[in-house]
Amino acid sequence: MKIAIAGSGALGCGFGYLLQKKGGQDVTLLDNWDAHIQAVNENGLKITVNGVEDIEEMKMCKPHELNEIMDAIFVFTKSMGLKAMMKSIDHIIGEDTKVICLLNGLGHLQTLQQFVDKKNIIMGTTVWTAGIDAPGVTHFNGQGPVELQNSDPEEKEGALEIVDILTKSGLNGVYSDNVNFTTWRKACVNGTMNALCALLDSNIEEVFASSTIDSMLSGIITEFAAVAKLQDGIELDVDETITYLKGLADSVGAHYPSMHQDLANKRPTEIDFLNGAVVEISKQFNLEASYCKAITDLIHAKEDTLGIKK
Amino acid sequence: MKIAIAGSGALGCGFGYLLQKKGGQDVTLLDNWDAHIQAVNENGLKITVNGVEDIEEMKMCKPHELNEIMDAIFVFTKSMGLKAMMKSIDHIIGEDTKVICLLNGLGHLQTLQQFVDKKNIIMGTTVWTAGIDAPGVTHFNGQGPVELQNSDPEEKEGALEIVDILTKSGLNGVYSDNVNFTTWRKACVNGTMNALCALLDSNIEEVFASSTIDSMLSGIITEFAAVAKLQDGIELDVDETITYLKGLADSVGAHYPSMHQDLANKRPTEIDFLNGAVVEISKQFNLEASYCKAITDLIHAKEDTLGIKK
Repeated sequence: MKIAIAGSGALGCGFGYLLQKKGGQDVTLLDNWDAHIQAVNENGLKITVNGVEDIEEMKMCKPHELNEIMDAIFVFTKSMGLKAMMKSIDHIIGEDTKVICLLNGLGHLQTLQQFVDKKNIIMGTTVWTAGIDAPGVTHFNGQGPVELQNSDPEEKEGALEIVDILTKSGLNGVYSDNVNFTTWRKACVNGTMNALCALLDSNIEEVFASSTIDSMLSGIITEFAAVAKLQDGIELDVDETITYLKGLADSVGAHYPSMHQDLANKRPTEIDFLNGAVVEISKQFNLEASYCKAITDLIHAKEDTLGIKK
Repeated sequence: MKIAIAGSGALGCGFGYLLQKKGGQDVTLLDNWDAHIQAVNENGLKITVNGVEDIEEMKMCKPHELNEIMDAIFVFTKSMGLKAMMKSIDHIIGEDTKVICLLNGLGHLQTLQQFVDKKNIIMGTTVWTAGIDAPGVTHFNGQGPVELQNSDPEEKEGALEIVDILTKSGLNGVYSDNVNFTTWRKACVNGTMNALCALLDSNIEEVFASSTIDSMLSGIITEFAAVAKLQDGIELDVDETITYLKGLADSVGAHYPSMHQDLANKRPTEIDFLNGAVVEISKQFNLEASYCKAITDLIHAKEDTLGIKK
């Protein structure tokens, strides 16, 4: 299968590497970072997967340099880069090209549908983590499931095919009947832990030890649950979700989530695809999500006071 | 007139000094800070008023050490210290003792009424500023009006008497027919500038330059205005208030407000008497003030992550 990775940062490289190396697929990494592309083309991709180092020769270029219709495309941009990436890969999407989206955050299906027929869109979630150590040098860690589901109820077969390819590549593909629930659940994690740690400049352990943690979690999750129900018919039990988040916080401890790292490294955050998305969806149903609005406004103000360009 | 200053920090010392020195009143400074009391008793109060240095011999002791009914008491505690102070000065409050409260923040009248007959309570606002440089050494700056109004509509005469004493003391006393409006207006200033600068660890100029400043101001002020109307019949026009706040921000520039300094110096903030008070009043009217609730929760969480004891 001809597979393109649209957005070959840390996570994209990890998926591309395993799909080629273990899965035997014909993979092309796409990205716009010159130094990264040059390093991979000259030296191969240096990657450490769950502690095991390897160097793999891989095809890598900019999106406009690939001129072939793909069988499948995995998108691995930042949330705010998805739309621009979709524009730049329009020429490699054919009538049967499956587009697989495992991005965190809300609203991506709506963006994808501007470029791809719904029958070819496969949504999913992953719990694998990754980082870039230098141009051409990445690490990739995980073992948890990669959950997938066809957006069009008629198209389960296509999703199952991708699940199979992932599993053969060591990526633990799992078909899910309710990937929307998992997506909302992850958004609840990121909309609380990420946003609060970033705003309070603290790690998860510190934030969850604060006297107002229950009020903060309930303030945010109540608004997420209202729109999950209205937009997607997803039932998020507020109390159960808070219990889940506290258990998760216990297990990760003194960890700084990615949005905290974004601010520390002066990168724009993904808040508009989490709490900010809940504010926007609420408007469509004539609701106010004022708690999430405060969080979103404050994160953007923080980006601004730090001089982060958007 | 026998006057006690209940809470003789920087502002209390400034008022006490001018009431005695310029006004010729019989003033006693009350406080609970040992080193401060000792310094004033041994060396007099060293005070710089609008740039002019002076040393003034003043009576100063702890509340329980004063055993005389006062004619007037000015309370100058932090908001969260008002209730404890009122308990400790119960024995110097007589049937006709006027209690004057110029504190920032909301809800103080309700606290005072637990200890003092409403007919003797005079509420007001001040725009003078002050600081403590060392025990017994303070500075005091201002010229703006000290607005006063009797809480009981029948008791205007008592308020006018205090206004007169203030003016004779160089403190620019002004009788106000609507001190409640000024109090809410000041609360709007502190509930936006103070809270946002503290949360964003930025000065007023930086915060007001952020892309979400309009949304933050409107999120907060809309909730303040709703309860000002419901509780006190005060009309705060949201747009006009935002225009006023922006003008004020322009004039003060790169200034860090007191709540930012509180966090920097690891002191608890007065958020519960600003945005937090709006949340509580809203509940009484079956409203939600979720934007202010987020701000309040986050400030408390920030106090906690900084290890501030409350």
